[in-house]
Amino acid sequence: MHDQALPKGGDGTLVERVMAVVSQRIAGRTLAPGAKLPSLRSFAETMGVSKSTVVEAYDRLAAEGVIQARRGSGFYVAGHAPPFSVADLGPRLERAVDPFWVSRQSLDAGEGVLKPGCGWLPADWLPEEGMRRALRALSRAPAETLADYGTPLGLAPLRQVLSRRMALHSVDAAPDQILLTESGTQALDLVCRFLVEPGDAVLVDDPCYFNFHALLRAHRVRIVSVPYTPNGPDTALFEQVLAQERPRLYITNSALHNPTGASLSPVVAHRVLKLAEQFGLTIVEDDIFADFEPEPAPRLAAFDGLDRVVQIGSFSKSLSASVRCGYIAARPGWIEGLIDHKIAASFGTGRLAAELVLSVLRDGSYRKYMEGLRARLARAMSESATRLKAIGITPWIEPRGGMFLWCALPEGLDAAVIARQLLAEDIVLAPGNVYSLSQSASRFLRFNVAQSNDPRLFSALNRAMAAAARRGAAAQIALA
Amino acid sequence: MHDQALPKGGDGTLVERVMAVVSQRIAGRTLAPGAKLPSLRSFAETMGVSKSTVVEAYDRLAAEGVIQARRGSGFYVAGHAPPFSVADLGPRLERAVDPFWVSRQSLDAGEGVLKPGCGWLPADWLPEEGMRRALRALSRAPAETLADYGTPLGLAPLRQVLSRRMALHSVDAAPDQILLTESGTQALDLVCRFLVEPGDAVLVDDPCYFNFHALLRAHRVRIVSVPYTPNGPDTALFEQVLAQERPRLYITNSALHNPTGASLSPVVAHRVLKLAEQFGLTIVEDDIFADFEPEPAPRLAAFDGLDRVVQIGSFSKSLSASVRCGYIAARPGWIEGLIDHKIAASFGTGRLAAELVLSVLRDGSYRKYMEGLRARLARAMSESATRLKAIGITPWIEPRGGMFLWCALPEGLDAAVIARQLLAEDIVLAPGNVYSLSQSASRFLRFNVAQSNDPRLFSALNRAMAAAARRGAAAQIALA
Repeated sequence: MHDQALPKGGDGTLVERVMAVVSQRIAGRTLAPGAKLPSLRSFAETMGVSKSTVVEAYDRLAAEGVIQARRGSGFYVAGHAPPFSVADLGPRLERAVDPFWVSRQSLDAGEGVLKPGCGWLPADWLPEEGMRRALRALSRAPAETLADYGTPLGLAPLRQVLSRRMALHSVDAAPDQILLTESGTQALDLVCRFLVEPGDAVLVDDPCYFNFHALLRAHRVRIVSVPYTPNGPDTALFEQVLAQERPRLYITNSALHNPTGASLSPVVAHRVLKLAEQFGLTIVEDDIFADFEPEPAPRLAAFDGLDRVVQIGSFSKSLSASVRCGYIAARPGWIEGLIDHKIAASFGTGRLAAELVLSVLRDGSYRKYMEGLRARLARAMSESATRLKAIGITPWIEPRGGMFLWCALPEGLDAAVIARQLLAEDIVLAPGNVYSLSQSASRFLRFNVAQSNDPRLFSALNRAMAAAARRGAAAQIALA
Repeated sequence: MHDQALPKGGDGTLVERVMAVVSQRIAGRTLAPGAKLPSLRSFAETMGVSKSTVVEAYDRLAAEGVIQARRGSGFYVAGHAPPFSVADLGPRLERAVDPFWVSRQSLDAGEGVLKPGCGWLPADWLPEEGMRRALRALSRAPAETLADYGTPLGLAPLRQVLSRRMALHSVDAAPDQILLTESGTQALDLVCRFLVEPGDAVLVDDPCYFNFHALLRAHRVRIVSVPYTPNGPDTALFEQVLAQERPRLYITNSALHNPTGASLSPVVAHRVLKLAEQFGLTIVEDDIFADFEPEPAPRLAAFDGLDRVVQIGSFSKSLSASVRCGYIAARPGWIEGLIDHKIAASFGTGRLAAELVLSVLRDGSYRKYMEGLRARLARAMSESATRLKAIGITPWIEPRGGMFLWCALPEGLDAAVIARQLLAEDIVLAPGNVYSLSQSASRFLRFNVAQSNDPRLFSALNRAMAAAARRGAAAQIALA
């Protein structure tokens, strides 16, 4: 209130000049919508005018609807702050590389639309028969199973199965250290609610799963990133960003990283954990692609013993995205606090979804299904790589497994331009900058090899790339 | 940094005195965990000592683990802020009247435990056969139904059914204004993510559904409350709190209010909406008990046309809490922003849960089931009221319907004391202060009439009340 003097001289009466000062503060957001204005007396003092001048200025601003009088409480800036749009929060991206846009396109795609950019398997690649058997079994379950909220931790036999599955990756998590959630995304949301505050720095890989950006924006944190290499995050830059930005959390996939398909090497895993300890960092290891691994890669949670590492996961990729069920495995002392957040945010978890997942995982056919799926994905991976290379699109690495192939377009081409063009032909691509906080992946695309077997895709890509190259050449000639 | 002078004289060297100042600031939270310490030079200047004295003080504090050196970046207070515990955020409540504790007790209760304090129907009161038929039908559904994420808005035919159901309450909501969520709780969570910011004031009824407190604490807002009368909120105090606190949101149940069972009168509804308009308030109307109404009561969303009112709901009470599905109906301009938050927080909604709900709602037997349920609840309400009155427990009002009876104990008795005593006999009660922000409902208990039909409950209540009265009398004699 003391840094703003009444504009000297100029047009208008004293009242109008006081009104102008208030209006400027509102326009410049020094006074936000809903904020209380200074009292008549203090504002009169600050401005060096009489109280009656401020009274008249406030009254006229109220008559104009700029501010509002509240009985016995003073004057307030009219209106409320606009709703909190997560889409508007980040850097202004063109819609084609906006993470929300890509999610929406993929989720909304009707029949006949090709979705090589989407992040899940086609329905007929999933354990359909196992699901049908599970639904039939559930139709005969006790009434409580069909009716009641689950317990706060979630279905005990499923937590036992998860504990055994984690042991296969050398992660030692007792069933009581595992909390079921509505989804892998909700698992991450609860961890963020518990561990970060608005304004904290949170570290992600560049590139990383685009919804990490969306979720973190919704938590009003400062997102920072570290370049991802074929062996994990660049450890020199990792150390640098830890020292400079002091992030509270690091969110990553250790095995079959999304979108690159890379996995953490033991050396990098060890270095990351050491730096985490040095800088007091907590790591969230999203292990959603565990079932797709041909042979287990190092897990941060295994080396660390769930001390600084929290592991999350779900069944949306390997079993069904229609049945929502995820989990958090964390140090025992954190489980109670996480349960409170879960009850606050969603009360119970779906007992029915957990029963279905348990039923499918226990079904004798599941292991065989997963073996078949891995083999099928390996073939699709190899075929997609061959076909993409044939039209000049180069895989960044050959992933050990999973469904993603992170590929570079030829020099000079922009993936967002190609994506926009293919969308007009009902093909949803995933352009690289959707995954990149630094917006440095404009030449990259993520292909889902299970959704990339239609020849239409490759011919459309070929045409779009040729057209873009022609436009580029024409532009160069025009410049010459 | 300028308000703290080096302690004069006393024991210890200069270095030790500099160390003491830093330690005090850390203990007093002037320097929070993770915070950067002042640079060597500026701190030396502030303290009026040489730089080498500060170097030694910092080095010794680092050796003690109190602070940490970061290469090229200076010194930081060791450790991180502790995790964000929602349970610790509110006023320190004894565990027996802590909302989290009551939720946990109810959700965790094993077989043989009576739960008159819980907020849902027993499994055998719910449409069990309809659910079994729905599960069998779903086991024959197309593969996509069993495998895929839902669309961003959620299953279209279910949104159409919801739109028609709302029309019965004169709420005009097009299917495109309805967004499916994982639960009613998640619906409220998304509305809060979209409409409130940390530090905003949010208004609730006193008493109100206790999980509103928990969820709002997790959003780091300032919770304010207004007393609830048998006709809705006290409008004079409602106006006063709007003028004084300028809440952004008001969260309420218009029909069959939880925990009181009261409903909004048309006069109060009109006044609340007028005040909402005057003060720029948005209202969230949680309509979760819609199906339990014998005849429709006024809905704020009906009068308002979903302008300042957002309606939310779910099927946990009338259909199944095991199948998670809720919804938000809001003004068209807000749906896109809410979808973005939904994708960020949970990616898709469970298509399977939505299909199950749709299937049960469409089942020819559902309407008849609900009629039967309402009649059964009316009988249970009347029986419970009679039995409670017989032991001196007085219903606050006779609710028009629903499952809750809000009752007062005789003068001088504390519901939390009775609740603690009955828990030892495996009976979970819901003491009034769980629902009361002002902690002014210590004499009240909420009874779920569908869970209050066991004679054990009334005899245990009778004994506990008599014992408490004896203790009270003994205490009075001792004081006399």
